Amino acid sequence: MENREIERKWLISAVPENLEQYECLTIEQAYLSTSPTVRVRKENEEYYLTYKGSRAWDGNSALSHTEYNLPLDRASYEHLREKRDGRLIRKNRYRIPCGDLTIELDVFDPPIAPLILAEVEFPSEEAALAFRGPDWFGEDVTEDPRFRNAAMASDPDWKFEK
Amino acid sequence: MENREIERKWLISAVPENLEQYECLTIEQAYLSTSPTVRVRKENEEYYLTYKGSRAWDGNSALSHTEYNLPLDRASYEHLREKRDGRLIRKNRYRIPCGDLTIELDVFDPPIAPLILAEVEFPSEEAALAFRGPDWFGEDVTEDPRFRNAAMASDPDWKFEK
Repeated sequence: MENREIERKWLISAVPENLEQYECLTIEQAYLSTSPTVRVRKENEEYYLTYKGSRAWDGNSALSHTEYNLPLDRASYEHLREKRDGRLIRKNRYRIPCGDLTIELDVFDPPIAPLILAEVEFPSEEAALAFRGPDWFGEDVTEDPRFRNAAMASDPDWKFEK
Repeated sequence: MENREIERKWLISAVPENLEQYECLTIEQAYLSTSPTVRVRKENEEYYLTYKGSRAWDGNSALSHTEYNLPLDRASYEHLREKRDGRLIRKNRYRIPCGDLTIELDVFDPPIAPLILAEVEFPSEEAALAFRGPDWFGEDVTEDPRFRNAAMASDPDWKFEK
């Protein structure tokens, strides 16, 4: 359940064709705290409480953080969801194989739409830095705090602007 | 940060003499969910988010559960504390050496006072079952749901009755 995540994130303007061929998760999430991140998430019919050590606390870059995903049931998810700060984030996540890696393509529902983000998790910082995305990847926004889901949830005026 | 806890709990009617010689933690805690348990706690000047798998979920007895203690700072603690269900629980916890083990003696503040509980954590279920407490230990209430801190927090009419 503990997972040291090393990941990068990109803006996407044109999604690949035949998206429906890939595994898709319908995600809803709500934030209870942003530093550290305490979040509840529904992924299809599974429910989690997630804790991510804040950057200030663990001293790492945005590339890497420690994450815990702890199981909830539907009742405890719905109970904790009501305690959220800001709004719910809803998105469809397509899982697209890419060599040994997986591209997670997040297509956001309104009001965050038309934002689309791609995230890739890597086995090492070296692999993360060496990675070249497919040609439909746009700008690398790994270090841009505007594209953290917590920022989208907490800012009532959040609007996608390139 | 993951910890499989095996513990027993007793009622205490007479505390040992010279309690002030032992290490003491001043604890305040608040519950956001009870099944599974999601709790925030202040221990002196340290702050934690705690998750305990519910009995229904992990299929274990009250003797044993998996617990995660994840660090918060003061601001995130105070933010999450406001999202609590029911009331704050405040107590002083004395740590009393007992052979290779430690007795945690919890002396509750009002309105839970005059309740005093002792808890001991064990390295194995065998050790837990074989343990004989000192003669000032009262009734074993390990399996009694009334003496779970979450029950005291969530029931506005909770009152200590032997």
